[in-house]
Amino acid sequence: MRAIQITEFGGPEVLVPVELPDPVPGDGQTLVEVDRAGINYADTHQAENSYLAKQELPMVPGGEVVGRTPDGRRVVALLGTGGYAEKAVAPTTTTWDVPDGIDDVTALGMIVQGVSAWLLLRRSTHLEPGESVVVHAAAGGVGTLAVQLAKAWGAGRVIATASSPEKRALALDLGADIAVDPKEPDLKAALIEANHGRRVDVVLEMTGGSVTDQSLTALAPFGRLAFYGMASRELPKPVQPANLMSHSTTVAGMWLAHVFQLPGDVMGTALDELFGLAADGRLKVVSGGEYGLSEVRRAHEDLRSRRTTGKLVLDPSR
Amino acid sequence: MRAIQITEFGGPEVLVPVELPDPVPGDGQTLVEVDRAGINYADTHQAENSYLAKQELPMVPGGEVVGRTPDGRRVVALLGTGGYAEKAVAPTTTTWDVPDGIDDVTALGMIVQGVSAWLLLRRSTHLEPGESVVVHAAAGGVGTLAVQLAKAWGAGRVIATASSPEKRALALDLGADIAVDPKEPDLKAALIEANHGRRVDVVLEMTGGSVTDQSLTALAPFGRLAFYGMASRELPKPVQPANLMSHSTTVAGMWLAHVFQLPGDVMGTALDELFGLAADGRLKVVSGGEYGLSEVRRAHEDLRSRRTTGKLVLDPSR
Repeated sequence: MRAIQITEFGGPEVLVPVELPDPVPGDGQTLVEVDRAGINYADTHQAENSYLAKQELPMVPGGEVVGRTPDGRRVVALLGTGGYAEKAVAPTTTTWDVPDGIDDVTALGMIVQGVSAWLLLRRSTHLEPGESVVVHAAAGGVGTLAVQLAKAWGAGRVIATASSPEKRALALDLGADIAVDPKEPDLKAALIEANHGRRVDVVLEMTGGSVTDQSLTALAPFGRLAFYGMASRELPKPVQPANLMSHSTTVAGMWLAHVFQLPGDVMGTALDELFGLAADGRLKVVSGGEYGLSEVRRAHEDLRSRRTTGKLVLDPSR
Repeated sequence: MRAIQITEFGGPEVLVPVELPDPVPGDGQTLVEVDRAGINYADTHQAENSYLAKQELPMVPGGEVVGRTPDGRRVVALLGTGGYAEKAVAPTTTTWDVPDGIDDVTALGMIVQGVSAWLLLRRSTHLEPGESVVVHAAAGGVGTLAVQLAKAWGAGRVIATASSPEKRALALDLGADIAVDPKEPDLKAALIEANHGRRVDVVLEMTGGSVTDQSLTALAPFGRLAFYGMASRELPKPVQPANLMSHSTTVAGMWLAHVFQLPGDVMGTALDELFGLAADGRLKVVSGGEYGLSEVRRAHEDLRSRRTTGKLVLDPSR
């Protein structure tokens, strides 16, 4: 089969198309004939071995696929590695049926980004109806879905940030009430102004550095900031719990991998709800473009340069 | 009327019983004929002017009373100062009716400590049924109520910490499943062992220093620590949001004063629920003793020396 293989860690240049033997599923694994593989920002960390989970070489990158099982079921699956290929093996426990009417891009958009947005709003910040929500990187994979979910779940005001006029227009199109440039010199003031002069209740933050620092100071009493990524690769300032107390504010960290350590089938519950909202037309995955195997380097370059919008997928057949 | 008045700041010796004119309520204020006034640790700070809110002299200390309004309603009220007296004026917005069957000590125990425990479990940590909960300082005012509330709301396991065998026995008597000495050299390991080898879901923490640090590392994925006091006067270590992300954990700060900045009548909602649980016999305020006006100095001495357990009240009629 054709696949992308990495034999040394590094930037997009290490992503090399090769011929490999078909993978063979072991106990508790499901073979998936890949229709489309998701391309995620996390894959750029995986390729340079800067991700939370450390990698071994050689490696086929890619953590999510949609396709068919040998018995003909259409499934979407999460895997540690091996997604950028014509065939992949996934743990059966992280393989879910895709309902009719959910297309490949939507299925792939829900499994990581959709479930992340669901967890951030439901479990990390416990959004309540009427609350204000700041969604940073609102044109990104998680951001586009978080904007829509926050609106669907009754947020009082959704404030999107995105780095270009086009991305801010997309966020507004998806239902954000206002869009802000995160490079505003006084981002705290800009967020509060965007919320009619009031501090904000919820912030979803994956940028890091001063965006995190300033967003934290924009929180209202009992406000919560969920930190789930550090795309700038800059650490935010450390937070002193006594300062959180004197403002009654909360900082929540979230890494999707931990969902599997929760009791019950939280992934299954989340996917059911997300697919239901998508089938009803209330939640859409923004397509960010489709790449062939030989174009994956460009996909990673586009991701790293923050040029992309929406869900990027790989067609391993070309 | 008789009252305690402070004309110079200092220790318990500055608390002097005197005769004063009756206070006169202004617009938006309610006169309360005081049956009992709460005596809180914060009052010792008020007397020496070391509290966050600075005081002016002369001053009648005391921030909470239960009693009757001129039209005969039985109410509990929060006030800035003036509680240690036969009559007090309270803002009408922080005056609540007390249902029949709720005694004075219970009413006073709910208004600060009860609402704090309610907010910590409902708003700061969003306790879910089946989850494990660590309650530090479990024999204290908030702790005794938090242990009972966590059980009443379906916590899977309540782990109490308290500094003496007597206080740990009280926590067990109130429903804690196990009690741990917070001075264990490896507190993280002790908490996990107390939870049958599993990390814990929720921690309510008002100690500071290494108790906070170690409790944070004992959290399970999606676990939440609420920080609402620093009795040791030692700051915990600062927390890096990226570390919260890599463990999917949350640190929430909580200061009761902020409840009045929340939309809706959260205090009223919380008090309704707390009084209901108390009326049903599912939640009890532990009485810490009753003092007359001439005994208030001893009450402050007892509080400062950490000898007391439960809710201390003042009877201004004697």
